[in-house]
Amino acid sequence: MTYKAPLEEMNFLIKDVFKIQDTLGDIEAFQDFDEDLYSAVLEESAKFSENILFPINRSGDEEGCHFDNGKVTTPKGFTQAYQEFAQGGWLGVSGDPEFGGQGLPKTINLLTEEMVYATNTSFCLYSSLTSGAYHAIHAHASDELKSTYLPPMLEGRWAGAMGLTEPHAGSDLGIIKSKAVPLENGQYRLNGTKIFITGGDQDLTENIIHLVLAKLPDAPDGPKGISLFLVPKVKVNVDGSLGESNGVSAGSIEHKMGIKGSATCVMNFDNAEGYLVGKENRGLYAMFTMMNLERLSIGIQGIGLAETSYQLSKEYALERKQGKNAQGEGTTILQHADVRRMLLSQRAYTEPARALAVFMGLQIDKQYHHQDEAVSKKAAGMMALLTPVAKAFFTDKGFESCNHGVQILGGHGYIREWGMEQLVRDAKIAQIYEGTNGIQAQDFLSRKICLDKRELIQELFQLIDNTLDKNSHLNEFNQLKTELVKVKKCVIETTDWLKQAFSERSYEIQGGAVDYLHAMGHLIYGWLWLEMLVAAESSGNEGLLARKKLAAAFFTQQLLPQAFELCRRVKQGYQVVMEANEELI
Amino acid sequence: MTYKAPLEEMNFLIKDVFKIQDTLGDIEAFQDFDEDLYSAVLEESAKFSENILFPINRSGDEEGCHFDNGKVTTPKGFTQAYQEFAQGGWLGVSGDPEFGGQGLPKTINLLTEEMVYATNTSFCLYSSLTSGAYHAIHAHASDELKSTYLPPMLEGRWAGAMGLTEPHAGSDLGIIKSKAVPLENGQYRLNGTKIFITGGDQDLTENIIHLVLAKLPDAPDGPKGISLFLVPKVKVNVDGSLGESNGVSAGSIEHKMGIKGSATCVMNFDNAEGYLVGKENRGLYAMFTMMNLERLSIGIQGIGLAETSYQLSKEYALERKQGKNAQGEGTTILQHADVRRMLLSQRAYTEPARALAVFMGLQIDKQYHHQDEAVSKKAAGMMALLTPVAKAFFTDKGFESCNHGVQILGGHGYIREWGMEQLVRDAKIAQIYEGTNGIQAQDFLSRKICLDKRELIQELFQLIDNTLDKNSHLNEFNQLKTELVKVKKCVIETTDWLKQAFSERSYEIQGGAVDYLHAMGHLIYGWLWLEMLVAAESSGNEGLLARKKLAAAFFTQQLLPQAFELCRRVKQGYQVVMEANEELI
Repeated sequence: MTYKAPLEEMNFLIKDVFKIQDTLGDIEAFQDFDEDLYSAVLEESAKFSENILFPINRSGDEEGCHFDNGKVTTPKGFTQAYQEFAQGGWLGVSGDPEFGGQGLPKTINLLTEEMVYATNTSFCLYSSLTSGAYHAIHAHASDELKSTYLPPMLEGRWAGAMGLTEPHAGSDLGIIKSKAVPLENGQYRLNGTKIFITGGDQDLTENIIHLVLAKLPDAPDGPKGISLFLVPKVKVNVDGSLGESNGVSAGSIEHKMGIKGSATCVMNFDNAEGYLVGKENRGLYAMFTMMNLERLSIGIQGIGLAETSYQLSKEYALERKQGKNAQGEGTTILQHADVRRMLLSQRAYTEPARALAVFMGLQIDKQYHHQDEAVSKKAAGMMALLTPVAKAFFTDKGFESCNHGVQILGGHGYIREWGMEQLVRDAKIAQIYEGTNGIQAQDFLSRKICLDKRELIQELFQLIDNTLDKNSHLNEFNQLKTELVKVKKCVIETTDWLKQAFSERSYEIQGGAVDYLHAMGHLIYGWLWLEMLVAAESSGNEGLLARKKLAAAFFTQQLLPQAFELCRRVKQGYQVVMEANEELI
Repeated sequence: MTYKAPLEEMNFLIKDVFKIQDTLGDIEAFQDFDEDLYSAVLEESAKFSENILFPINRSGDEEGCHFDNGKVTTPKGFTQAYQEFAQGGWLGVSGDPEFGGQGLPKTINLLTEEMVYATNTSFCLYSSLTSGAYHAIHAHASDELKSTYLPPMLEGRWAGAMGLTEPHAGSDLGIIKSKAVPLENGQYRLNGTKIFITGGDQDLTENIIHLVLAKLPDAPDGPKGISLFLVPKVKVNVDGSLGESNGVSAGSIEHKMGIKGSATCVMNFDNAEGYLVGKENRGLYAMFTMMNLERLSIGIQGIGLAETSYQLSKEYALERKQGKNAQGEGTTILQHADVRRMLLSQRAYTEPARALAVFMGLQIDKQYHHQDEAVSKKAAGMMALLTPVAKAFFTDKGFESCNHGVQILGGHGYIREWGMEQLVRDAKIAQIYEGTNGIQAQDFLSRKICLDKRELIQELFQLIDNTLDKNSHLNEFNQLKTELVKVKKCVIETTDWLKQAFSERSYEIQGGAVDYLHAMGHLIYGWLWLEMLVAAESSGNEGLLARKKLAAAFFTQQLLPQAFELCRRVKQGYQVVMEANEELI
């Protein structure tokens, strides 16, 4: 069973659907690049993922990480692969050239990241957390810290880790207990325990740069009393060489359902020395500026694993002989309607998810690089709006797709040998970390919809209208267009209902938050299916068009109308549920 | 985190909802029993499951089974627990007293089985497969075989295993290759390889009785050329003592996603000697008479694991402090609407599932024990009709519930320590074995609905009408009653549509089989929620009534109406999907 990166799909999205050259063409930072270069980067990334990362995915799951005498060991092959990954420039695809990055659009980086997640999610977490730490430092740290820490991180000599969660504080970071005390030299002394720290310790790099949330003495209670600190595992001398070890150590690693090649550590900070990043008590703000990127990254984990599950289960379905076809002849299971239903469901959700990821990548590129502040701000708003949808909907549907994959293989899907059940186990965590999908849904409903003075959601509805208007003359794709108009109307009505209800009973209507996010996800995917159909037709690629038409028809007929029932549930409300005493639940 | 068997629920079902004494009162076999005895049996079963089986569930998952030098070892504690289980009479709860069983109703046995699955699914599989083999021998083997083999199986000295699947033949048993050649002494010599054999080898018992499907020389092709054989691991002397070893050996064990304490074996039969069970070439028929029992048993695995997941996640939600309540005060996560949504969804699907299991248990008891053949036959029909719904819907919703449980615990749900992720892994297999849920749905749609000359489905609709009529005078539960009438109408229309379509395009409409089964599941659960509400009101148990009212309201408002969308999808059909070439899928 093999994974082949979906390069045709990716090139179709950047060139035909979103016309990356037009979209990013007026951004100075990308003047040296063109579509051919982007395609070449994707092709090289595909080779690395297929040939280096996929072969150590199953073995990494079987072997897992080990913790002995305070030292973490990653599975065989991970260290070498990480060094090759760094040498290939893959850690810094969209990194700042000033610090050794390639300066490519984030859009391209998201697609290379999908391949890495698809072929080896555990491995990908080391690089994506390093990337997260890179972004936080890049955005908020002093020039001195940046020039000292960023280049070795992109070179793969040092990695990054993020220390947020504590034993008693997960989604509710306002109640963390870690402390930071200022020292005379301008540094800080940190004490505390952090849990669930991905890559908190490992044997891939000679140093690990921890970004740690902690409270200063006399800091206000709650989220507004949290500061962000850079705390290296090994102290760094002024010349950038490694000094003595800092008070940073792993207390243990977690034994988990999946992502077993990724070391999830309990981290102890004992009088560790660190640096303030950003302003005092503004740590959550600093964290949140890169949180959108991290959340989108985790969403892409869902896409990558769904793609792999689809590819492997289709390969199996093409070969496995079982039962009879409509003519009563022995056949492969790909001829069975129920198997086709599952395979098309995988595609119908994965392909628009990838399209949305590319769309969001373009927003990020505009946000960070566009010269026109108005354009940049608008893009940032769209990115903020869509982030919880992408994180939660990509990963909910990704998990569902991986389960379809197991089901298609039957008993062979359940045994470890074929690798299908690992995809389920690896996908499950994406619904949980970086904020559970329930939290994403609440963020979406409250902050992004009901409390949003800018009414960003109207911009999204406008984009959908634009696509419908632009293609109203086409005497094609009518079923999708008709359904899309109806679903949009329903989602808009539900949005208005929520805004109204929010003022009186914001707490209760959160019961419908996940359903609302899913309804919005279906609407957005319907819009992107239409965009993809139109682009496929113009592309002249007959095979691609035929494939898109089939999956879009399946989406329109079988999946999109679920939005109506989801909206009904939201508007039903949760009054009875919230009024009930605890013992009745 | 602890599991407490839901005894109040179980007693409520047998006494108040289904009035077991009335229902089974005229069956001679059960004259010595009464409700108090049934309750006492359930209570003892609860103690065994809570105190003996639950404590070795997590350790059994961590340790798993081992295979060394052709020998299988089960996890620590399993052998002793199995012997105690047998000594307690739990292997023969509903077994024939002639062979050492307790002769209790299957209804009671299903509830004790739920507790065993809930606390230790891996362990339960050894006993439930033994029970399956017991039933097949009891129904089809000669008196001599019965008196030799059944008593040691109920005593726990010997266990049972079922050999159906081969490497190339899973759902499609017509193409198996195992061979049986008649010997002069009336026995048969068997050769072949079977895979995925639960308890194919183990260290719990001194002998293992394999029921094996194989083909006789010159047998017809396909399903009508398959015979069933009893093949002991160790040959049995005329006096019942153990003789020399037979040509039965485990080639390896599978490494699986879950149920790691259950040994799943590749079994090799090399000139093994065995006995024909039932008639030549009628092996599938013999297998299928006990297949309904096995499928229901697996369905109950889904209920048991969902119950455990609900209990553990509710316990966590009651204690875990995070976020704020509606008044802005710090609170436990049980106050959050999204957490309540998940907990109530677990209950809303688990409680009617248990009710349906009890209803089906009563059908089985009537089928096997009622003196009036017409009653027996009618019960057998209802059981056959409902079996695929129970197997697939219980386990699909069971898997969903276990996933809700992980989600409620967040990161703590994903690490192995808390045991929540094991429930997901253990529940996943139930959607696959004993016929994947896709196969169940096709069996339901084709054989149980469209090809059923007896129109058994009308009897089910009649039962629902009876409940509605009987309670039409009540000025209560109106929302559920109204919704139930509408859903019933929709499901009936869809059923009629399917029957019509089946004659022309039976192959294509199978794409909607799973959705149709789920629509039927919702209708049946709606019916049973109404039965439970009415019974709870009459019971005088205020606490129970309040709990039932809340979960029923949640089911009515949030879950039951999904049936409309499911039916719409079924009637949409899969023409586009089935006409497409393979490469477009």
